[in-house]
Amino acid sequence: MLGRMYERENCSAARALEVVGERWSLLILRNALFAGATRFSQFARLGLAPNVLTKRLNDLVDGGLFEASGAGSTRSYQLTDKGRDLAGAIVALTEWGDRWAAPDGPPVEYRHQVCGGGPVELVTRCAKCGDAMHPADLVAHPGPGATEPQRAVMSARLNPPG
Amino acid sequence: MLGRMYERENCSAARALEVVGERWSLLILRNALFAGATRFSQFARLGLAPNVLTKRLNDLVDGGLFEASGAGSTRSYQLTDKGRDLAGAIVALTEWGDRWAAPDGPPVEYRHQVCGGGPVELVTRCAKCGDAMHPADLVAHPGPGATEPQRAVMSARLNPPG
Repeated sequence: MLGRMYERENCSAARALEVVGERWSLLILRNALFAGATRFSQFARLGLAPNVLTKRLNDLVDGGLFEASGAGSTRSYQLTDKGRDLAGAIVALTEWGDRWAAPDGPPVEYRHQVCGGGPVELVTRCAKCGDAMHPADLVAHPGPGATEPQRAVMSARLNPPG
Repeated sequence: MLGRMYERENCSAARALEVVGERWSLLILRNALFAGATRFSQFARLGLAPNVLTKRLNDLVDGGLFEASGAGSTRSYQLTDKGRDLAGAIVALTEWGDRWAAPDGPPVEYRHQVCGGGPVELVTRCAKCGDAMHPADLVAHPGPGATEPQRAVMSARLNPPG
């Protein structure tokens, strides 16, 4: 299993980073999701050291993001539902990079196959009123998995004294 | 400036990871975005070593995600538009962690302040037809910033011979 990189954090973003935050992990998943890579030799084209790639693939199998089958040169890595479900986060990071770190324009555009090629867009919206949400409109509430100290801090922020 | 961690990758997700992929960086930004942290002492509550925190904050200032002002104990770090724009990626990672790595339920729920507390949801949709997109429906096309080899590989995938 993957380790706890962020011991003191009871936070779903921190848990996600423990699984995909190691260098290369997200690019391995990107190539599985959007370039159809399944073999060691295909992931190796990323240019990382073979021993690092072996470690990353094993960690992603242990974490339940890939299911491995076969052995030797026919060993293949298939995304699980848990792995495929990271597509949204990868698209979100890509959109940010396109806006802020792509001086020559986006290298890759993800398009909708079904309708004939509309560009993908990621919308943060309210599940209740349907409006698009600006980060400034988001407020952190304690969820069912919050610890007591987290609950206290968030409640104090939601209900300031006076 | 931050270094090139993924030298051979002309990819916006890779560029994003170069800026926010170092351990703790995304949690520092999360605390700035959703817990209002602006001071060294507030970020230090994450529990990382002070020398690492100093390095991360400096890197985020160099990368244009924070603007620093003041000195000593009054030095403060304010998010720039570039930093604030990472909210979508942080929400995406949080949603994934909520679904796959929160056995006791989500620790934190981000809710919509304006309408009285609807939960946030992240939708990947087509900007043309408006339909929600499944990762399997996304196809990578070469964008304006693609290199010639990237263009060739993506075009070959889009137009297989025969």
